[in-house]
Amino acid sequence: MQFDNLSAHTLRDPHGYSGKWHFYPEDVLPMWVADMDFPISPAIREAIVERLQERIGYPQMSGDKQLLNRIIQHQQQHGLTGLAPENLLLTTSVVPAIYASVLALSSPGDEAITQVPVYHPFLFALHEHHRVARYNPLLRTASGWEIDFEQLESLVTPRTRLLMLCNPQNPTGRVFRRDELERLAEFALRHRLWVMSDELWADLIYEGKHIPIASLGPEIAQRTVTLSGPCKTYNTAGLGGGVAISHNRQILAALAQVSKGIGGHPNVLSMAAWRAALEHAQDWLQEVRAYLKVNRDFITSFIHQHLPQVGYLPPEGTYLAWLDFSRAPFAQDAHKVMLEQAKVGLNDGKIFGPQYQGWLRLNFATSRNLVQEALERMARVVQTVD
Amino acid sequence: MQFDNLSAHTLRDPHGYSGKWHFYPEDVLPMWVADMDFPISPAIREAIVERLQERIGYPQMSGDKQLLNRIIQHQQQHGLTGLAPENLLLTTSVVPAIYASVLALSSPGDEAITQVPVYHPFLFALHEHHRVARYNPLLRTASGWEIDFEQLESLVTPRTRLLMLCNPQNPTGRVFRRDELERLAEFALRHRLWVMSDELWADLIYEGKHIPIASLGPEIAQRTVTLSGPCKTYNTAGLGGGVAISHNRQILAALAQVSKGIGGHPNVLSMAAWRAALEHAQDWLQEVRAYLKVNRDFITSFIHQHLPQVGYLPPEGTYLAWLDFSRAPFAQDAHKVMLEQAKVGLNDGKIFGPQYQGWLRLNFATSRNLVQEALERMARVVQTVD
Ligand SMILES: Cc1ncc(COP(=O)(O)O)c(C=O)c1O
Ligand SMILES: Cc1ncc(COP(=O)(O)O)c(C=O)c1O
Repeated sequence: MQFDNLSAHTLRDPHGYSGKWHFYPEDVLPMWVADMDFPISPAIREAIVERLQERIGYPQMSGDKQLLNRIIQHQQQHGLTGLAPENLLLTTSVVPAIYASVLALSSPGDEAITQVPVYHPFLFALHEHHRVARYNPLLRTASGWEIDFEQLESLVTPRTRLLMLCNPQNPTGRVFRRDELERLAEFALRHRLWVMSDELWADLIYEGKHIPIASLGPEIAQRTVTLSGPCKTYNTAGLGGGVAISHNRQILAALAQVSKGIGGHPNVLSMAAWRAALEHAQDWLQEVRAYLKVNRDFITSFIHQHLPQVGYLPPEGTYLAWLDFSRAPFAQDAHKVMLEQAKVGLNDGKIFGPQYQGWLRLNFATSRNLVQEALERMARVVQTVD
Repeated sequence: MQFDNLSAHTLRDPHGYSGKWHFYPEDVLPMWVADMDFPISPAIREAIVERLQERIGYPQMSGDKQLLNRIIQHQQQHGLTGLAPENLLLTTSVVPAIYASVLALSSPGDEAITQVPVYHPFLFALHEHHRVARYNPLLRTASGWEIDFEQLESLVTPRTRLLMLCNPQNPTGRVFRRDELERLAEFALRHRLWVMSDELWADLIYEGKHIPIASLGPEIAQRTVTLSGPCKTYNTAGLGGGVAISHNRQILAALAQVSKGIGGHPNVLSMAAWRAALEHAQDWLQEVRAYLKVNRDFITSFIHQHLPQVGYLPPEGTYLAWLDFSRAPFAQDAHKVMLEQAKVGLNDGKIFGPQYQGWLRLNFATSRNLVQEALERMARVVQTVD
């Protein structure tokens, strides 16, 4: 089984290629930045090798036609229909599309609402460009993380321009239900907000069904830019590739304008890889998803048995576990304690929103033995300190 | 011979991959955008295939260490010494570094001086970001294109911030001499200008010697950002890759800040290709350079014999011929006439500066038979219209 029994020794490649494996000292198990420790699908590798037989001069700047059509077909499978190649704008990866959305759909001083905790570049893009982030904290209920719609209404001011949605949600792993998305769409329309919906994790879900918010109707489609890419699903982060999708071509024109020049041009091997992924890596993906789901369930039962102090709700999607150590005696230093004492390298919760000091994000896209090793190291420290 | 006797039929790949070959109608010979019709070095292909054996998750964001060291070594061969990895900032290609330089080293309303004609994104970056371009037209003398230093002085105002140098020069093919660069450096220092020196073409020269302006002394090094990349030399435009180099780390920090997020992250296969190019593609490069030089000389004698009306000075570097049709009866429509009557797709001179209506840029990085075909088509039209 290609996903099982990986060793930290070989994953920490001697070339220093992997950012994940070369950030922390050698005795630390890195469970942070969101890529998988698994090899990519052979189909992707083969497609790149084949593409190398052709010239690799400048591509058509709008992207390879066949790739654009595959992306359209893939979105259609998720229920986002009526797209033509003109509704797609390729970017070098998804983060550039997040930044471009912030720059194109708001002005300095404008306010943007986002559910927190959230993928930190949402907040960085806002802060760096002098937009104001307004936080809509997800509520922890008995049944799971829920949107606080009442608090959401209270955030709106005359300067509110943008709703930044992450669905499936990084780091909580929520996959928003149709009723939630309908309320969000109604909210955005009523207040005439633009919607940036980062749906990069759409194909890595275990329960529920991914629904693009722009698929809910023509009105919300006209106000939404949907972001997608291959890198989480197919573990090709080092290759990049991203796309901004909108039925409203003026939105895309605005994104293209702020990206012009500085955003670079599409990479021919990324495009070949992405197309191969959509065409030929579906079996690989099914295996990966099955493996990750067992990892998730393993974490759920481990925490239940050995770390009952830690707040945790199993994610419906993503390969991220969002862990609440905020009531631990070392809550203020949770990241440092896990790094230095448990020798596990996690993401510090505080980057996901101002109130998440004491929370940690764990990436479980690795082989089970390493997930177990990390959890056992963490449990030993918690038991010592408690 | 791998560079000879290419056919338009196979170069216009059926997948639509090549931007160059799919922009104009089928009966047009495309001699415009700057990539070569030659296959890449096998060493680069092999390095990419090898790199695919490793994980392709996120790289270290500063770039692969071995690549950075190779770039440093390569710059050293050109005489730019004293660089450490911290003096390098990788970008997804060179155009993003041009835009970042404009954004980082000037403010809206500031003025930037550049020798024209010049690679059009210099001018686009200035205009789009509300900087003022001040043109220093190269002078056509008996011995070749020369910098007009007197006019240069007259351009300086209290708002002048930046000198944007292209060396080797696109589109004239000038390779600036040490005495010229010394005068430019003295000028920049005296007026306390920042210098962006785009040296992407440094390794494609036939006469003269490339001298990085930042190598002239520690003072000018502190005010210069040098741009480089693999894509012209090794014909890897579809793979991207670029680097901003400066002895002044504050310049690089400023470029990094304006690129953050929107600029994307380094691509692992581009990095592998670039490193392989510097390490193992030198024989390939020597062959390419020799082939291109004969193409250039062929053009020189063809024009001399068959197109004496056309103003032309043989380029010392680049694979670009800068052709003056401004005294032709069809000067106002030179691009259109060549496209529609000669069926040759060139770059319209007017994008290289406001006074170059009637000029055309021809890319001769293709096999001799196609260069000849293009020139013959052009000569027939000129003879008909004259
Ligand atoms: C929600 C979300 N968007 C974007 C990204 C980054 O995408 P890329 O590497 O394509 O820039 C991530 C990475 O973890 C993510 O979780
Ligand atoms: C002077 C110069 N700089 C930059 C570029 C573009 O570089 P890249 O494709 O790496 O963005 C070109 C392409 O022709 C060029 O001539």
